Parts: sequence; C-alpha cells; structure tokens
Amino acid sequence: MMNAVDVIRTKRDRQPLSDEQIDWVIDAYTRGVVADEQMSALAMAILLNGMTPREIARWTAAMIASGERLDLSSVARPTVDKHSTGGVGDKITLPLTPLVAACGAAVPQLSGRGLGHTGGTLDKLETIPGWRARISNAEFLRQLGDTGAVICAAGDELAPADRKLYALRDVTGTVEAIPLIASSIMSKKIAEGTSGLVLDVKVGSGAFMKDLDRARELARTMVELGTAHGVDTVALLTDMSVPLGLKIGNALEVEESLEVLAGGGPADVVELTLALAREMLALAKIDVDPEKALRDGRAMDAWRAMISAQGGDPDAPLAQAPVTETVLAGESGVLATLDAYQVGVAAWRLGAGRARKEDPVSAGAGIVIHRKPGDRVEAGDVLLELRADDENRLAGAHEALKNAWTIGTAGAAPSLILEKIHA
Amino acid sequence: MMNAVDVIRTKRDRQPLSDEQIDWVIDAYTRGVVADEQMSALAMAILLNGMTPREIARWTAAMIASGERLDLSSVARPTVDKHSTGGVGDKITLPLTPLVAACGAAVPQLSGRGLGHTGGTLDKLETIPGWRARISNAEFLRQLGDTGAVICAAGDELAPADRKLYALRDVTGTVEAIPLIASSIMSKKIAEGTSGLVLDVKVGSGAFMKDLDRARELARTMVELGTAHGVDTVALLTDMSVPLGLKIGNALEVEESLEVLAGGGPADVVELTLALAREMLALAKIDVDPEKALRDGRAMDAWRAMISAQGGDPDAPLAQAPVTETVLAGESGVLATLDAYQVGVAAWRLGAGRARKEDPVSAGAGIVIHRKPGDRVEAGDVLLELRADDENRLAGAHEALKNAWTIGTAGAAPSLILEKIHA
Repeated sequence: MMNAVDVIRTKRDRQPLSDEQIDWVIDAYTRGVVADEQMSALAMAILLNGMTPREIARWTAAMIASGERLDLSSVARPTVDKHSTGGVGDKITLPLTPLVAACGAAVPQLSGRGLGHTGGTLDKLETIPGWRARISNAEFLRQLGDTGAVICAAGDELAPADRKLYALRDVTGTVEAIPLIASSIMSKKIAEGTSGLVLDVKVGSGAFMKDLDRARELARTMVELGTAHGVDTVALLTDMSVPLGLKIGNALEVEESLEVLAGGGPADVVELTLALAREMLALAKIDVDPEKALRDGRAMDAWRAMISAQGGDPDAPLAQAPVTETVLAGESGVLATLDAYQVGVAAWRLGAGRARKEDPVSAGAGIVIHRKPGDRVEAGDVLLELRADDENRLAGAHEALKNAWTIGTAGAAPSLILEKIHA
Repeated sequence: MMNAVDVIRTKRDRQPLSDEQIDWVIDAYTRGVVADEQMSALAMAILLNGMTPREIARWTAAMIASGERLDLSSVARPTVDKHSTGGVGDKITLPLTPLVAACGAAVPQLSGRGLGHTGGTLDKLETIPGWRARISNAEFLRQLGDTGAVICAAGDELAPADRKLYALRDVTGTVEAIPLIASSIMSKKIAEGTSGLVLDVKVGSGAFMKDLDRARELARTMVELGTAHGVDTVALLTDMSVPLGLKIGNALEVEESLEVLAGGGPADVVELTLALAREMLALAKIDVDPEKALRDGRAMDAWRAMISAQGGDPDAPLAQAPVTETVLAGESGVLATLDAYQVGVAAWRLGAGRARKEDPVSAGAGIVIHRKPGDRVEAGDVLLELRADDENRLAGAHEALKNAWTIGTAGAAPSLILEKIHA
C-alpha cells in the first residue's frame, strides 16, 4: 500500500523514487487522493534534492498517462512543433508556425497564456478580432491537414496531472525545479503527438533560466525525454538578456509578426525565426529554404489561412492603446545594455501581462523599443515608447525601468543563438 | 507587501527569513491567508535548508503570539513543568506531576494525545473512570493553586498556529525538522506560563531522535528558546532504546505509575521520575527530597487529589483486556536487547495507540514485559505478555515483535540518563 508521506519522505531523505511510487503519486494526485499540501511538499523536496534521469523519465511518462495522447497519424504531412521556454518580446511562434507550414510541414502548436513578465501566444492572437483559441479535436486535425498550421489552446484532456501540478507550483515557490519544468513541458508536447520538436531554451535576465549552465541542463533533460518517447528533439539555447524585437505587448507583437511575414521586421526576430524554421524543417526532412517562403508571400498566405480557419479576420485593424508616453535618453553615447527582465516587467505593469491566471490582459498595452544595444543615442532621443489603456499604469512602468539600460562609449547586440543541443 | 511565494523562495534559496517575513507568514497562515500547500512547501524548505537560532527564536515567538499566553502569577507556589519528546512506556508524567506538587511546586502540565507508536498522557489518564481532560482556565488555575498538580488538555487558544502547523506537518513528511519540533514544543510550554521547565529528550530506536547528536541539537535549541523567553530550562538526554518500565499501554501505565507512587515500581521508572523531580525542584528552588515524598505517601495523596479534582475516581478498578497471550524465549542465555520501537509498534497494533487522530484507543490493550536487557532467561520463559480487546490484533503484534529482542551470553541495561544540557 502506497501512501503520500512515505513517497515524500523518500525524496526528502535523498533517495530516488521508485517507478511504482511515481506512477502512484501522479495518479493519486490527479484523482485528488494525494492532497495539494502533500504534492507541494514533494515538489519542494524534488526542487532541493533533484531527480535522476530515470526518475524524470518516469515522472514524465506518468504525467502523459494521466490524460490522452493525440494521434496525428491521419495527418499526411510530417509533424513538427516548437516550444520556447518564454521571454520578453518572444512572438516567434506567430510567424514561425505559418512559415514552416508554408514549407510543407504540419505544426500542431498547442499553446498557453502568459503569466508574469513573459507574454502568452494565445493572449497575442486573441487581439485579432474573431479569433478563437479553443477548437475541437476534429477541427484541430482538419485544420492541421488542410493548412499545416494550428495554434490553439491545449485541451483539458492533455496531461491533466501537469495542469494541476503547474497551478500548484506557481503558488508554492516550486516552479524553478529543472525536473519539474522539463517534465511539464515535455509531457504536453509528447502527448500532443508531434513527431519532431525544436526547443528554444532562453537564457538571460528575461528568461526563466538566468545562466547558461542551468539552461543547458534543462535543454539536455528535455532532449533526452523527447528522444526516449520517440520524438526527434533538438534544442537551441538563445539569448534573452535583451528583449526580442522592437515591440512588446499583445497586439504589438502581432504587428511585428506581420512585418516579418511581409518580408521585413527586426533582424533578431527574423534571424531566430529562420534558425528555428531550419531546425524544424530538418527534423521534418523537408529541403525547402524558409527565407524564400518569407520573401515570396507564402508564409503570409499560410498565416491568413491559419487565422481565418479559427474565425479570425486577418484584415481587421489591431487594438491601439490610447495613452502613450516616451522615455528619453538622458545622455549621449552608445546603448550598452537594455535589460529584458525590467522591460518585461514594465510591459506587464502597463497591462500587457497578468499577475494571476484569472486577470484580463490589455490588447494594446506594451512597449515600443526605439534603440537596442549597439545603437548610437543622443541625449533627448526616444529610447522607449510606453502604451497603456490607463495613465495610472505609467508610474509602475517607469519604476520598473529605472535601471533598465546603460549608455556607454561602446556596446553591441549579444549573440542571439548560443548553442545547439541534440541527442 | 508580503506574499507567501517570496517567503518560500527565501528559505528555498538558503537565505534566512527576516523577522517581518516570519511574523507575517505565521499570522497569515493562522488566519488562512497563507494556504496549507504554501506552508507545507515552506516547512519542507525549512526541513532541508535549516534555520538560524535567530530565525527559530522569532518563529517560536510568532507562534506564541498567535494565541494567548497564560498568566500564572496568581499561583502562590513556584511553577515548573516537564516535557518529554515521547517514548515507549514513558508514563513518567503520571507519577512525576503529583510528586513534584507534593514537594511544594505547582506543575501546570498541558498534555497531548498519542499518535503512532508512542503513547499519550491524556489517553492514559482517560482510562480512569470519570476523569476529564478538558477543564476551563478558571478550573485550571484553581486546581493548580489548591493541589499544585494539573494534567489536562491544552486549550485551543494556546499557540493555535502550532496546532494547525502540526497537523499539516504530520501529513506532509515534515515532522522531522529540528527547528519546527523545537518551536512547536516550546511555543506551547512558554505560552502555558510556567517559570521553570525540564525537558526529557529521548534518544534511541523508540524515540523521535534516533541518534545522540540530533537529540543534543534539539535539546540545546529548546533550552536556548526557553531561556530567551524567561523560562528557566534544562534538558536531560535519556535512553529510549529499551522500553521504559515493564508495562506499556494506557491502563497498564496508570497501574505502573500507581506502583511508583506507592513506593515501588520498576527501578528505571523510579530513577527517571526522581531525576526529573530533582531537576524540577532545583528550578523551583525547593529543597525537598522527592524520594521521601514517594516513600511516605505524600505523592500518592497528591495524585488522588489531582485525579479527584478532574472528576476521576482514584479507587475505581482499571480496564483489563480480555485477550492475553504470552511470548516465550526460544533459547537460554541473557537478554541482550529489547527494541523499544518494535515493542512500541506491537503495543500500538494491540490497540494501545492510534494511527490517525480520530481513531479510538483501547484502555486495556498493551504489553507486560517479563524480562529486560541484562536479565537471565531460560528457554520457555515468558518474555512478554500481550493484551488486547480482540484476538485479531495478535497477529500484527507478533509480526512487529519478530526481531524485537536478542538473547546472548551477556547483556546489561543501558544507562538511562545520558547527559544534561543547560543554558
């Protein structure tokens, strides 16, 4: 007979959990037999004492087994997906999904909403009038076969143990455990049924992983988990010390994605979109140049089909926030740093993000960046433009931005793509 | 603005909690603002990462402040109490309280019930017909002044944070944290209002602390806490590798206590009762020989007054369990060991203890020990006598006793009193 206290004590006392203990505790927690206060004590013990690769693999398998696993075998195209661990201004999923679909793959992108200083893909797309995040399994499969591109909300039947555990970790200071992060991400991606997966693991102040060593450990753990479950998985470690692109906020990031799909957009967003597209196409064994698909409009066509299929009007104007204010450079020189975390917190306070799951987000609120590290600035130049629905939001954003940049005599944009991890 | 996740993260990341964090989290938990799943994650982080003496002191003060602190200044006699960390056959509170009262002190003994393999003082006294564990504050003060001896249940208003936290720790594998054990015990004893306190910290298989180092650390922590709150506190570290006395079980332990109060009883029970009485009387600055008070019947008189004051009939016959069975020695020699933990578990399974707080206990069930370590045994001699209300209880007890003793060529009772810790 299993009981929760014995399982907790095992991990507390630095022993590995047995397969039986892991299977039991995940199942019992999903059914409500193991209480939240027991699972949170276990999560803290896992965070502090770690897990072996064998334990992480079993934990992930148990989370997958808590729900259904989608069967994408009816989709004729090769399936390949991407997951980012999240960053400030990270809208890459938006142009990437239709781009890779336009090249011939099927991208079954089940996404989430934003919490804290990083944005959520569904929040961004919901700024498009008419667009629906929730679609049925039948709609999902049909759209995936027809257009090759779906971005939608994950259904409740996918890894329900993870849904419950994630909400618990969020309020108990147990989010930052690599075994729990890796199993949370990978259980959903594996259950989603994709054949290939490219992970964009962010590193830096605006990312979940602040240092390269931990990011590398997370990436390796996830690549191993995917591979063990028959999903071809590679990871790129990419910089998140500076915001990605020039626009941060829900509608603002849709705008910038459209610039990229139209063949323009900021260099860093284009670079990362193409790098991830090449990795995805390689996994799908499709020999097509994605740069060409951006230039000749095929990616934009795939975007329009994807948005329309979920009820969205690709031609409707996007929300604009009524309150705008500029932040000026106080001195002349070269912008040396622009801290992703602080810019992310400012955008969040302007209304682009939420503090609790049940909070609404503003469509138009956010930040437009006018100078990035390496750019020359003169005193009085506009560095940032703040946008909000309500001027009471401005003070908190200014406060967050107090030490968000430095101006020096030299500076350069950091390297964007740091490392590739594969099986 | 405090929030629970920041407090949890502080301890998780091995930083000391600030006074403000401790005060806030204990108060917010008591009021239900901090949820059980948050407190259990914090408790696990405390268990694994520890606390500084300053944190433990503040944590204890915050738990005291969560309820009321009794004022015993109206009691003319010097007040002194004793707390044992619990062991198998540990009925010392029963003869000790009236003995010390008979010598002139007032003993405000607020006790608890048993859980697991160790017995609870209130469960033992409740085998006396009519005796009530719950009395009002007014009755408590009157009885303490009149007879000098009260053993009763702690009221709900005493350290309510501890009551809530203890129940949580019990189900989340976070009982075994020295900072939490020490603050739990000491918050109640300090809130109880006693001027002096003697701690009996048990060491060995039948105790909470299995090794001397951890027992010493717990004793030192508690002595420091008491001293810092103005309670004269000393601790004895005493052996709990062998059961204390010859009788284990609720009514059986009352029986053995009466033997001691009548001037007889097993040598180890008498030795420990007198040692603790001498420490308590020294703290109360009372120069009376407790051995004399046992011999001349004054301790028994104080017992009778104490029991009667709470509605008990000191002359009523005690419960006898209907089912008895003997356990015989399989070979001849000297009894080398008799494991306290295994004997405790056997008594528990016979019905003397409870697995969950809401379970009933049997009055008559338990074990009578016929040989102790150092005693000569012949094959076929009775080693133990098992008593139960129901013969279905016997198999589990036999199972627990399978490796509970060894017979060799030599053996001796272990030293009972190992060390004294004082400020």
